[in-house]
Amino acid sequence: MPMIEMVEVAPRDGLQNEKTQIATADKLALIERAIAAGVRRMEVTSFVNPRAVPQMADAEAVCAGLPERADVTYIGLVMNARGAARALATGRIDQLGAVSVATDTFAMANQGQTSDGSVAAAQEIIAMARAAGKTGQVTIAASFGCPFAGEVAEDRVVAMAAELAKADPVEIGLADTIGVGNPAHVTSLVGKVRAAVPGVPVRVHFHNTRGTGLANVWAAVQAGAVTVDAAIGGLGGCPFAPGAAGNVSTEDVVYMLERAGIGTGLDLAALIAANHWLGGVMDRTLPGMVAKAPPFPKQDGANQ
Amino acid sequence: MPMIEMVEVAPRDGLQNEKTQIATADKLALIERAIAAGVRRMEVTSFVNPRAVPQMADAEAVCAGLPERADVTYIGLVMNARGAARALATGRIDQLGAVSVATDTFAMANQGQTSDGSVAAAQEIIAMARAAGKTGQVTIAASFGCPFAGEVAEDRVVAMAAELAKADPVEIGLADTIGVGNPAHVTSLVGKVRAAVPGVPVRVHFHNTRGTGLANVWAAVQAGAVTVDAAIGGLGGCPFAPGAAGNVSTEDVVYMLERAGIGTGLDLAALIAANHWLGGVMDRTLPGMVAKAPPFPKQDGANQ
Repeated sequence: MPMIEMVEVAPRDGLQNEKTQIATADKLALIERAIAAGVRRMEVTSFVNPRAVPQMADAEAVCAGLPERADVTYIGLVMNARGAARALATGRIDQLGAVSVATDTFAMANQGQTSDGSVAAAQEIIAMARAAGKTGQVTIAASFGCPFAGEVAEDRVVAMAAELAKADPVEIGLADTIGVGNPAHVTSLVGKVRAAVPGVPVRVHFHNTRGTGLANVWAAVQAGAVTVDAAIGGLGGCPFAPGAAGNVSTEDVVYMLERAGIGTGLDLAALIAANHWLGGVMDRTLPGMVAKAPPFPKQDGANQ
Repeated sequence: MPMIEMVEVAPRDGLQNEKTQIATADKLALIERAIAAGVRRMEVTSFVNPRAVPQMADAEAVCAGLPERADVTYIGLVMNARGAARALATGRIDQLGAVSVATDTFAMANQGQTSDGSVAAAQEIIAMARAAGKTGQVTIAASFGCPFAGEVAEDRVVAMAAELAKADPVEIGLADTIGVGNPAHVTSLVGKVRAAVPGVPVRVHFHNTRGTGLANVWAAVQAGAVTVDAAIGGLGGCPFAPGAAGNVSTEDVVYMLERAGIGTGLDLAALIAANHWLGGVMDRTLPGMVAKAPPFPKQDGANQ
């Protein structure tokens, strides 16, 4: 059976925009549930300015509470050398996740850099990770569209991937940060990036803002992406902004892929239970669909 | 630009499970909004036992109020000769839509027939349509899974399509009635059915019960399906049953396809406006995602 690696991003990208501060203990319980469901790589927090992202202000506390698991890779998201140093200083982060942004306007808004500056920063972060005996990877944000500049040229993303590859990241991620991608675009861009950086695995990161999240995942997997970011419950986006929507739901992606004969190593029932538990913590029904649907087919082979 | 034909099913499949009776005038307003958005084929009602489906008890009244449009094909869904006679008697139905069911258990529950019986009934319905100077098509329900029998063999669906093709329907539809399909299954089954009934166009009908609706649409279009059923707002399913979920949303499908360079002839802004209007009529936010998201890219080429 072909396999796709899932990276769980609920503890970071899923939670970062929540206005209500989630208790560190709840974040750690989420991380433990994800591991119990089979997750072996996870974005556990980000090391950014706590005034900009208050929800991640407990990054060091989260790291201090991470389960000691040699078989789990913990990712810390960082934007610059200062964040990388913080992450490495915890002693609990296995992999630094850098972010380069495809447009200047979004790069300035997101991390106060130009797009080229964000590439250089990512290269420095990856080098710092390696120097510390860890691994580094990078995600190209707004790969499929920018909230400020609109359409993003594929050539720009391909050129960034080629430049980033010089830093020898363990993978390059393509992120549809604002959920405007479509599967034809995904097929094209994943193919072009793979051709531009042969030997570098491609990860994809989609939001379901306009309903196309799973279609984009499917197109990416068909085009040779080997790793998919997803958040339990489809968490993400801001509950107070009607236009915001979450990451693709881990349990929905796992349902789709496993039903399609592609293994993920994850336990769907445990993910659905985690969705229900997390909905209780957040006090709302989460966007993921499979967790609301009846099981199919039932364990005993009969339905109803 | 390649084109996909969209069939609007909100007035029938979208509404049929609503517990609150929708006024006939509201149904007609929905139909008028769909036409104004560019819809040129639409399932407007079904001619079934009003005790079984009370929401469709006004089938004749809906037909009496349909806009007189020579360029719009109005479909009436029927299960048997009695329903076909009712539909034809209105003088306003252009196309009979028959339903064959892939499993005996679901066929008995849905329409009190065996699966084979539902094939024979569809053949009779298509013949009645032709005799009346109308057209007839058929949808194979539960093509991707059955709520009672579980998995459905592809060979069964292919054999049904071959048998149904003898009645010369204008198309054969494959329906994922309970939303358990996955894109690999869709790719396979659409391909096999097309090969089994060369020259007969294949339509697809997906529900988004488990989040895979648009992925399935994308896979079907890539596999050569030429027509896609969808409901404005992603209407469908029962609001009082947590596990139920709607049809794929017309506006989400149109967003995905048009962004991917595939024309639909529909006006996305008008569909989004229809979603918002319909949400008001139903007094709830509808499942479709694009209607909740900010426009992208903005008309003036700048975002924010």
